[in-house]
Amino acid sequence: MSGILVVGSVALDSVKTPAGKSIEALGGSATYFALAASCFSKVALVGVVGEDFPREHRRTLELRGVDLAGLKTAKGKTFRWSGKYGKDASTATTLATDLNVFKTFSPELSDAQRKTPVVFLANIDPDLQSSVLAQMKSPALVACDTMNYWIDSKPAAIKKLLAKVDVFFANDQEAMKLTGAVNALLAAEALAGWGPSVVVIKKGEHGALMKVGSKFFVFPAYPLARIKDPTGAGDTFAGGFLGYLASTASHKDISYLKRAMAYGTIMASFNVENFSTKNIEELDRGAIDERFHDFAERLAVPLEGGLLRGRRAIPV
Amino acid sequence: MSGILVVGSVALDSVKTPAGKSIEALGGSATYFALAASCFSKVALVGVVGEDFPREHRRTLELRGVDLAGLKTAKGKTFRWSGKYGKDASTATTLATDLNVFKTFSPELSDAQRKTPVVFLANIDPDLQSSVLAQMKSPALVACDTMNYWIDSKPAAIKKLLAKVDVFFANDQEAMKLTGAVNALLAAEALAGWGPSVVVIKKGEHGALMKVGSKFFVFPAYPLARIKDPTGAGDTFAGGFLGYLASTASHKDISYLKRAMAYGTIMASFNVENFSTKNIEELDRGAIDERFHDFAERLAVPLEGGLLRGRRAIPV
Repeated sequence: MSGILVVGSVALDSVKTPAGKSIEALGGSATYFALAASCFSKVALVGVVGEDFPREHRRTLELRGVDLAGLKTAKGKTFRWSGKYGKDASTATTLATDLNVFKTFSPELSDAQRKTPVVFLANIDPDLQSSVLAQMKSPALVACDTMNYWIDSKPAAIKKLLAKVDVFFANDQEAMKLTGAVNALLAAEALAGWGPSVVVIKKGEHGALMKVGSKFFVFPAYPLARIKDPTGAGDTFAGGFLGYLASTASHKDISYLKRAMAYGTIMASFNVENFSTKNIEELDRGAIDERFHDFAERLAVPLEGGLLRGRRAIPV
Repeated sequence: MSGILVVGSVALDSVKTPAGKSIEALGGSATYFALAASCFSKVALVGVVGEDFPREHRRTLELRGVDLAGLKTAKGKTFRWSGKYGKDASTATTLATDLNVFKTFSPELSDAQRKTPVVFLANIDPDLQSSVLAQMKSPALVACDTMNYWIDSKPAAIKKLLAKVDVFFANDQEAMKLTGAVNALLAAEALAGWGPSVVVIKKGEHGALMKVGSKFFVFPAYPLARIKDPTGAGDTFAGGFLGYLASTASHKDISYLKRAMAYGTIMASFNVENFSTKNIEELDRGAIDERFHDFAERLAVPLEGGLLRGRRAIPV
């Protein structure tokens, strides 16, 4: 596989957290995803901004090699979101959402875009996600995300979409709401029954779990004592996960999927250490891999008298 | 090291959960701890029961080889606790606490007990924990737990105790309350500053974290989609952790401490799969190690082209 198409929002975010605030900073699901995924793979972004979208934000994405041919500029203002986080940083309180040019967003993909092997349908109207997917020419890997707003208003459209998706990302509260399950594992089980061969449930500071086949893999978050701004954690997770997978040969091998979980975890950890996209704009692969190795090393439970390797211990 | 002395409660618990209920079943912090730790090490229990304590409960502990010379029978009734859990199983609502003979519990250790190398001061009055510790003859490893009740009523006594303790166990809410920290990692940092070289913060279904030196190690819970009764999860965790450590040469080597975290996780996972102590009464080491290996295997993030070993990849 190689190359990812992401369809989603590009926004100007104003965020307040106990660590400070940022005003009209670069944001949006497609933005966070693209910046994270571009550390691993070629990314093309499909979205819309208004005439007021700052030139330097476009430049930030271009410097990461993100293909912006699909980022249209429409008459009007860019999508704006503002929110605040309390001490626990787990949930945002939305203060204002101004869809602006995003209100009439309805992407038409170019021929080149239709042929991209990996597609990530970021959090937008599930009917729109389905319409984008219908334009794709037999992609190797289809992934999507969603959010509470669509779970409340269009659950049937999400279920219909999931039948055609390989990897589904959701946070634990959303997954439980969508399925009616009482915990994240049962929610993942139910969601897998609707279609996706891989279900990833994100639990914020408590890490993430992945269901593949009959097995659950649960990983903690990378331990950070201080975070500044949780905005975009889910999309950078998906960006690390899919960016890594798109750079490899396979998404059916469990070793690749476990590494994808670890890269997702690591990209989200970098992201929340600073406001907006500041920390991931210029992140290099060396720093990513260093933290990835540190994470894997902390998680490794050495067997007595040797290392773990499948069910056997390797004598050292 | 070899041999653990546990001082704590032995109780009759009545518990209601969404999965069912149990009435006047075997419970108490010292009981759960002893049953779990005895899968790894010799355990001596110090506690008190009333004249009504069923003969078969004593037998259950004896069958695991738990030394009950320190379990006194006092005039009166055994400590009783009853509680219920909601759907999320994370916190118990206490319905009744009848301390009974436990009210005047004030253990005097025998000469043999004072020489035990490892001691676990389960959740009792911190002044009592200190008085037991003062009776010990230079133990190799001292560990303790506490609970909200003592954090509210005797925080200074807990702080004083922690200065003399090697391993401190607490759940995340308790640790944050005790230290005033806004998250579990900062709480662990603060607690480590008070004395313990190892701080273990339990997060229920979200796993546990350990602070050793300047490093955090975070592990998820063993993935279970269905649990029956969370009672005793914390004490079986401590039992697996210390039982394993007491059976080994060292508690200063990070490999041993990581395995201890994994054994704690596994013992807690078995415990919550059934009511009261049912699941851990006859658990054998083979079943424990099978789940331990499965847990370690799921957590292992294989590096590309090889296995993780320290910072290097071993080609396969």
